[in-house]
Amino acid sequence: MSERVNVYEVAPRDGLQNESAVVPTADKLAFCHALVQGGYTDIEASSFVRPRWIPQLADAADVFARLPRIEGLTWWGLVPNQRGLDRAIGCGVEAVATFVSASEAHNLKNLNRTVRESLAALNEVIANARADGLRVRSYISTVFGCPYEGRVDPARTADIAGELLAAGAQQISLGDTTGMGNPRLVREVLSCLTSSGVPIEQIALHMHDTRGTALANCLAGLEAGVRTFDASVAGLGGCPYAPGASGNAATEDLVHMLQAMGYETGLDLDAVAEAGHLIEDALGRQLPGRYHLYDRGLRQKRSAKTG
Amino acid sequence: MSERVNVYEVAPRDGLQNESAVVPTADKLAFCHALVQGGYTDIEASSFVRPRWIPQLADAADVFARLPRIEGLTWWGLVPNQRGLDRAIGCGVEAVATFVSASEAHNLKNLNRTVRESLAALNEVIANARADGLRVRSYISTVFGCPYEGRVDPARTADIAGELLAAGAQQISLGDTTGMGNPRLVREVLSCLTSSGVPIEQIALHMHDTRGTALANCLAGLEAGVRTFDASVAGLGGCPYAPGASGNAATEDLVHMLQAMGYETGLDLDAVAEAGHLIEDALGRQLPGRYHLYDRGLRQKRSAKTG
Repeated sequence: MSERVNVYEVAPRDGLQNESAVVPTADKLAFCHALVQGGYTDIEASSFVRPRWIPQLADAADVFARLPRIEGLTWWGLVPNQRGLDRAIGCGVEAVATFVSASEAHNLKNLNRTVRESLAALNEVIANARADGLRVRSYISTVFGCPYEGRVDPARTADIAGELLAAGAQQISLGDTTGMGNPRLVREVLSCLTSSGVPIEQIALHMHDTRGTALANCLAGLEAGVRTFDASVAGLGGCPYAPGASGNAATEDLVHMLQAMGYETGLDLDAVAEAGHLIEDALGRQLPGRYHLYDRGLRQKRSAKTG
Repeated sequence: MSERVNVYEVAPRDGLQNESAVVPTADKLAFCHALVQGGYTDIEASSFVRPRWIPQLADAADVFARLPRIEGLTWWGLVPNQRGLDRAIGCGVEAVATFVSASEAHNLKNLNRTVRESLAALNEVIANARADGLRVRSYISTVFGCPYEGRVDPARTADIAGELLAAGAQQISLGDTTGMGNPRLVREVLSCLTSSGVPIEQIALHMHDTRGTALANCLAGLEAGVRTFDASVAGLGGCPYAPGASGNAATEDLVHMLQAMGYETGLDLDAVAEAGHLIEDALGRQLPGRYHLYDRGLRQKRSAKTG
């Protein structure tokens, strides 16, 4: 009865990009090396957005040049546009992720262009990436709610997903950018997408835990047939709208739940947790993942006993 | 399509009992007053266990004497045995909760008696409480896993639940004491109980978030028909086995999810969150609830703007 579920790790990119203090490249690489021990198939390592936008990830080229090559593991790079794609290809990146928002207001605030303008550009970026032999996944943000517009019509997401797939994207990752989703809405969105022709096998869920619903939303997606989930070690990441709030779904929490339910993730939970402790130490601040905190408490207790 | 779900608040008892620094009675009462604004029907206010066991709740009699009487709100007291019940009745308590573990090892460690011995005593306590006109709910702990025994046979829980109901308990609260449950196991346990004759209407779920699964487990219970969930404001509470780990499901997270899904809880989420900030200030340490952190971040941002 064991069934495979893929966990796409986003901590080095989506997790770190919210950290205000710039993490040295060597620490990022040590973190990526620790993640490798977890047994991942997919890790998003950095971003080729303009360095001025996200200084934290300005060292993307350096990071990619020094990442270990591991059989069965793909290092992904985020690209905003053709220029970002060109930089990624120049670094030998073999798999890229694009992004656009489902809500007009969020796309305008985030990218200073309309969704239509973004899609027109992405159609070319995706086609060019595929023509160059790269793998492509495409994020759609604010699918489950927009901090400016509120409710987002699932039909908009279905249209955008259809267009991205037609352009050549191989996977669509539906983002709950500010954690506004709930399990009923997850099912509604998935049902809308699949009935409009988006194959469930090509859908990933990228849930945020801003209001505590990330795992419940993943569960709803899991039971609707989704088999790829984005997550961030130790819940690394934040929310730009509420300082101190939680960000991404925590990888350890998700993996623990999946394994407890009998799903096969291919991941070594202890090794993943170890990577979480390493990046927590590097950042020097407590990370919010539940399993992470539990595991840290056990380690402290153990070292207090032996020390 | 709106359907009612009851949230049973445990923060003043289960949440506080893990706090090492004793909270002054006046602060507890201020917290209970703040909770009243949330619109609860049920709050567990304190415990009549031996004061030496849990010094934090040694002021139970004082707390109950000074709680406000509110139409439609029941203040519950935890009672371990006949002596505790007598003290509760002496304080005018009208609703009591009993407890026993599903796992033998946990019951022995926790209560220094076998499950059979506990049940023999509880049968009398429950019957006496009901004869005195009190309402009774009964916790069964470690239903979803025991830190000493590991897996716990759902059939044991079904037997214990049947015996407690036969003794007169009106509700059975199934406790995931150390957060070992998962959604698949929740469904398995509920199915075992209902097929052994325990009505789903009399089952409550008391989930802990030690490994991040509390809300996903509540969702599984909700969709299996459970309509009462225990929760603790701001996720107040901890885990005695791993210092720093999360404890109870956070009320705000649960209520937000239920409301977003269209369920009626009768609660004012803002007022509940306000109570969370109040007890956080009283304790002087950051509480872990996700919605709580998000709400705190928004408030900080707002006051930074206006200040």
